[in-house]
Amino acid sequence: MNTECPLTSTADDSVRLGHGSGGELSQRLLRDFIYPHFDNPWIAQAHDSATLPLNSEHVVFTTDSFVVTPLFFPGGDIGRLAVCGTVNDLAMSGARPRYLSCSLILEEGLPMATLSRVMASMGRAAAECGVHLVTGDTKVVERGKGDGLYINTAGIGILEHGLAIGPQSIRAGDLILLSGDIGRHGMAVMAKREGLDFDSPLQSDCAPLHSPVQDLLNAGIAVHCLRDLTRGGLATALVELAESAGRKMTVRETEIPICDPVQGACEVLGMDPFYVANEGRFVAFVPSQQAELALAVLARNPVSADSRIIGTVASCSSPQVILQNALGCERLLDRLPGEQLPRIC
Amino acid sequence: MNTECPLTSTADDSVRLGHGSGGELSQRLLRDFIYPHFDNPWIAQAHDSATLPLNSEHVVFTTDSFVVTPLFFPGGDIGRLAVCGTVNDLAMSGARPRYLSCSLILEEGLPMATLSRVMASMGRAAAECGVHLVTGDTKVVERGKGDGLYINTAGIGILEHGLAIGPQSIRAGDLILLSGDIGRHGMAVMAKREGLDFDSPLQSDCAPLHSPVQDLLNAGIAVHCLRDLTRGGLATALVELAESAGRKMTVRETEIPICDPVQGACEVLGMDPFYVANEGRFVAFVPSQQAELALAVLARNPVSADSRIIGTVASCSSPQVILQNALGCERLLDRLPGEQLPRIC
Repeated sequence: MNTECPLTSTADDSVRLGHGSGGELSQRLLRDFIYPHFDNPWIAQAHDSATLPLNSEHVVFTTDSFVVTPLFFPGGDIGRLAVCGTVNDLAMSGARPRYLSCSLILEEGLPMATLSRVMASMGRAAAECGVHLVTGDTKVVERGKGDGLYINTAGIGILEHGLAIGPQSIRAGDLILLSGDIGRHGMAVMAKREGLDFDSPLQSDCAPLHSPVQDLLNAGIAVHCLRDLTRGGLATALVELAESAGRKMTVRETEIPICDPVQGACEVLGMDPFYVANEGRFVAFVPSQQAELALAVLARNPVSADSRIIGTVASCSSPQVILQNALGCERLLDRLPGEQLPRIC
Repeated sequence: MNTECPLTSTADDSVRLGHGSGGELSQRLLRDFIYPHFDNPWIAQAHDSATLPLNSEHVVFTTDSFVVTPLFFPGGDIGRLAVCGTVNDLAMSGARPRYLSCSLILEEGLPMATLSRVMASMGRAAAECGVHLVTGDTKVVERGKGDGLYINTAGIGILEHGLAIGPQSIRAGDLILLSGDIGRHGMAVMAKREGLDFDSPLQSDCAPLHSPVQDLLNAGIAVHCLRDLTRGGLATALVELAESAGRKMTVRETEIPICDPVQGACEVLGMDPFYVANEGRFVAFVPSQQAELALAVLARNPVSADSRIIGTVASCSSPQVILQNALGCERLLDRLPGEQLPRIC
């Protein structure tokens, strides 16, 4: 597969400032390059907003902007990321994702072929997630004032259960499940950016997570908390949750899978995989008596097939996250003080 | 008032890549610079998403990204624009605006003082509109890969009436109301950008429009269609609506107010005010027998005090918009072929 797309071009078949005018060129951009990938009754109305039937009193709302560079990387692209990232934020509330918005900031000179490829990828990802992209916006900035393409998606989901899924529901005694190996997304993007070449291909884990979450809920698991492991990776997610919940968490290093290409890339680049971003992994906090059932449910879903029980929650006087190694030695996980890998999502 | 803020700086009190890491710096950015301006129970949860009580089956959803340059202009700034723009998109569906998201793309080096000032302005605008900013995201791009600050807002509103407000409801015989003078926003931004100095100050009309819309609905006006006059101005809005509705619209030039500074700036810069962006003006299509009442209602609201009945809708074989001048001469308004004023919102 050819993943090389030039970032900007001077040809006629590239984005011009007039594509952001709201005039004739804007209409053509929407008609030819955007609408064809999102076929639903709401976007077809071509209004400034979409009126949606939502038979729920409890609506979940989230947003994310995506500035990943490069736009295309092994295992995904900015379009797929923009759909999965927002779907996953909804899923982590235990919500069923329903509707997305899509707002583009295009740099003058972006090849139309690049835009088309990204929009097609968004369309496929939305179909895969069962969400409708219903409203959007397009702006164009002058050459040199952007970086090809930034995408914002906002998402609406509905809660169909009575659980209060969130850090406040984490209890002492809960077990912590991890849905698969860590570090793939960040290292796939970084390897591509740095031109690293590995024997085995390093692919992003970029994937929607609503289906394993629905599986857990359908199986009657009283999920206490869910969190996807994006910027800052597993370590940052656990530290944030420990602080929000006011709990101590202990996780076993031997239970946390890291594939060889990720381990290798981290060594070459001097990264700690516990802090590397993922885009298709999450942790779930469940009551201990339901942990084995939850593990069996997750193992049946391809996106979480390699799930493990990685640790436990305890009461404490000061919140902390402890990583135990194979020898039983412990180290304290902390927040990342600065930036490990910029522009990975 | 000093509206000069440097766009980027190398000082410690400016945005660093680590502010986009999801780690300690990100937390501090949120805690010190963002949360203080948006005090509500949902943002206080500091989750990736917000769960909202919405006692409505009909939810309206919209999004817009804002890339205006300069960030501060007479009569507004990018923060106020980002709130009003999305509130206005909701209002034009006849929805009551309820919740906003806010996603920031910051350029490394943006002074924290600039960010603070924009966030404070967003907070004030949200309070003015009665909307809650409930969820958000922050990304940082490297110096030279952005333009200081881009803001995306998405909005959720609810429909509290049974009207089908939209182009499909425009009928032959409807009268067209315009809520005030045109061209202020685009020319205020352009004058600031070009360093033009006028005797009388040229201020953007940037304002929320939900309150005059609510006034119309509360007065029992059977509003057929509403449209705010943003990119492309009055002409583009009317052409789009005429095409969507399949109608002929005739508007009288003498009834369309243009203030002297706008007229002057348009002459200096060679612009047509009919195509210049507004951020606080809209057109309303109402049944002719209710037009005088609608006008009286709008005139009582400061934001639409200078409303006029500017034209009529008729049946036709091909949709068109006719502008009649004082002498009765007619010219056809068309879509803008390209870009008149880039980066005005």
